Amino acid sequence: MASKKIAAGIDIGGTNTVFGFVDRDGNILAEDKIKTGQYDEIEVYVAALYEKMMIARQKITEDVEIIGFGIGAPMGNINKGTIEYPANLPWKGIIPVADVFKKHTDLPVVVTNDANAAAVGEMIYGGAKGMKNFVVITLGTGLGSGFVVNGKLLYGHDGFAGELGHTSIRPGSSNRDCDCGKKGCLETYVSATGLKRTLLKVMADSTKPSDLRKYSFNELDAELIHQAAKKGDHLAKRAFERTGKILGFKLADVVAHTNPEAIFLFGGLALAKELIFEPAKKAMEENLLHIYRGKVKLLPSQLSTQNAAVLGASSLIWSLRES
Amino acid sequence: MASKKIAAGIDIGGTNTVFGFVDRDGNILAEDKIKTGQYDEIEVYVAALYEKMMIARQKITEDVEIIGFGIGAPMGNINKGTIEYPANLPWKGIIPVADVFKKHTDLPVVVTNDANAAAVGEMIYGGAKGMKNFVVITLGTGLGSGFVVNGKLLYGHDGFAGELGHTSIRPGSSNRDCDCGKKGCLETYVSATGLKRTLLKVMADSTKPSDLRKYSFNELDAELIHQAAKKGDHLAKRAFERTGKILGFKLADVVAHTNPEAIFLFGGLALAKELIFEPAKKAMEENLLHIYRGKVKLLPSQLSTQNAAVLGASSLIWSLRES
Repeated sequence: MASKKIAAGIDIGGTNTVFGFVDRDGNILAEDKIKTGQYDEIEVYVAALYEKMMIARQKITEDVEIIGFGIGAPMGNINKGTIEYPANLPWKGIIPVADVFKKHTDLPVVVTNDANAAAVGEMIYGGAKGMKNFVVITLGTGLGSGFVVNGKLLYGHDGFAGELGHTSIRPGSSNRDCDCGKKGCLETYVSATGLKRTLLKVMADSTKPSDLRKYSFNELDAELIHQAAKKGDHLAKRAFERTGKILGFKLADVVAHTNPEAIFLFGGLALAKELIFEPAKKAMEENLLHIYRGKVKLLPSQLSTQNAAVLGASSLIWSLRES
Repeated sequence: MASKKIAAGIDIGGTNTVFGFVDRDGNILAEDKIKTGQYDEIEVYVAALYEKMMIARQKITEDVEIIGFGIGAPMGNINKGTIEYPANLPWKGIIPVADVFKKHTDLPVVVTNDANAAAVGEMIYGGAKGMKNFVVITLGTGLGSGFVVNGKLLYGHDGFAGELGHTSIRPGSSNRDCDCGKKGCLETYVSATGLKRTLLKVMADSTKPSDLRKYSFNELDAELIHQAAKKGDHLAKRAFERTGKILGFKLADVVAHTNPEAIFLFGGLALAKELIFEPAKKAMEENLLHIYRGKVKLLPSQLSTQNAAVLGASSLIWSLRES
């Protein structure tokens, strides 16, 4: 019998690098991690990672064949196989991570950012199976996005298409600072952090009582606000409504640019379900040109939050073979 | 010697349908037109158009071979070969123009909207030769856009990608009505009509003298405002600045979506050169995430305004063969 083909998925985060070996159905056959921050040099880091991956691979009892290495990383550039000026990784400047990896293997190595990996993961294993034109929005600390067009990842001229988190919600007049140095970026409103900032604004403007008034900004998080909203807390519900409304407003722009079949929401905020989906869907429809109305699905991601990063990274390899 | 290959380009407008036969270098070897409004039935219209095209073809003295028919039309749907609910054409509903055309020919018939045709025209004959990722913005009475991604037209799931004219410039608060039924659409600010509306706003707010104060709204047009601005008219210059600023703001969004190599401006407003390019470029750069800054070219279209519609439509056929 032929060996079972598996793709390696690697998620490089500031704290941990998590990896797994994944079959075509999205089953993770082995997984492990290393501490990203312990390696000042990319060569030493990749050597240690590769070694640990080979150890994990030995633990798979089935007869398997690795067909490639997919890497998801902040500022990952799919055109060049590089990570470019990442804010939270130990290495600086433009890091040729694919080239360093290729010293250890002749198999394909694909690098992209987390949101692009999530989009391909949705197409290979998740809710976008069979779709050719869709968008995945990842809602975490920030807001990421990955676009699939004609069945392929849209990466653009410099490899950086799909940075919706840093589009602006209006010209000039927003007060909300973004870590990127601009003001009024979408992710300052629509993300776990954005929700928290909006709650504070709502709390400042309203005199209504709320359990959330006893928490400091540092103590608050999206989950606390979610739980409060579920219990009917007025301010928490209001914060979700505003967040969803701004999201929907910008989703209408996404539709006018790329006319997708569906938009998937992934990550913490998406788990709040109708609290975010209802206002987002309503605002999206209101802002759509008539030719698009009622046609674009707004859906929750079908990838589990826990494994999505590794699944997404591994999916890059299947996508390479199947496109 | 082999026949010279030529592509037919047809531009369906509310008043006239203009067509031409175009060689691969963009030379128009023959052209003519018919009155669109004279034909209540699409079958009769296409039969008359086809007949007139065959007459024009006979006038070409070279030995030529027609390789296909490219059609640009408002609300043209490239997926289906239809024109869908056009506002200014004699036919209603969903018009299967490609199918009707195919009763007369076995050659390829491609339908898309004017802005998409302009984008492909720019790639085949104009300033985007060799580019794989770029955007063309057409600035006329309204604002259209065509996106090329990986060397191919981006048409999306329903065939209607690239309707930037109907993205909104801010959530909720714009007063400016759009013909589409929404408020605050980009084309209500950035288009020949948008410029005129902005001039009136500037004129209302300012006490500065201006030659333009003697013209009614109906008398004003983009060319008058352009000429006034060139002579130093304060209000006219201000109107261009505001128009360019809003355009640049939304171009930064375009970059964050699709990361193009270049954005081309086509049409009347683009002819105002630095009056529109300077504020647009400045606002675009200010609103770009750092990874894109200084990288995206903002360029004037290299297609002549006069022939662009026929060239664009014909280019669809070359693009079909070369992709």
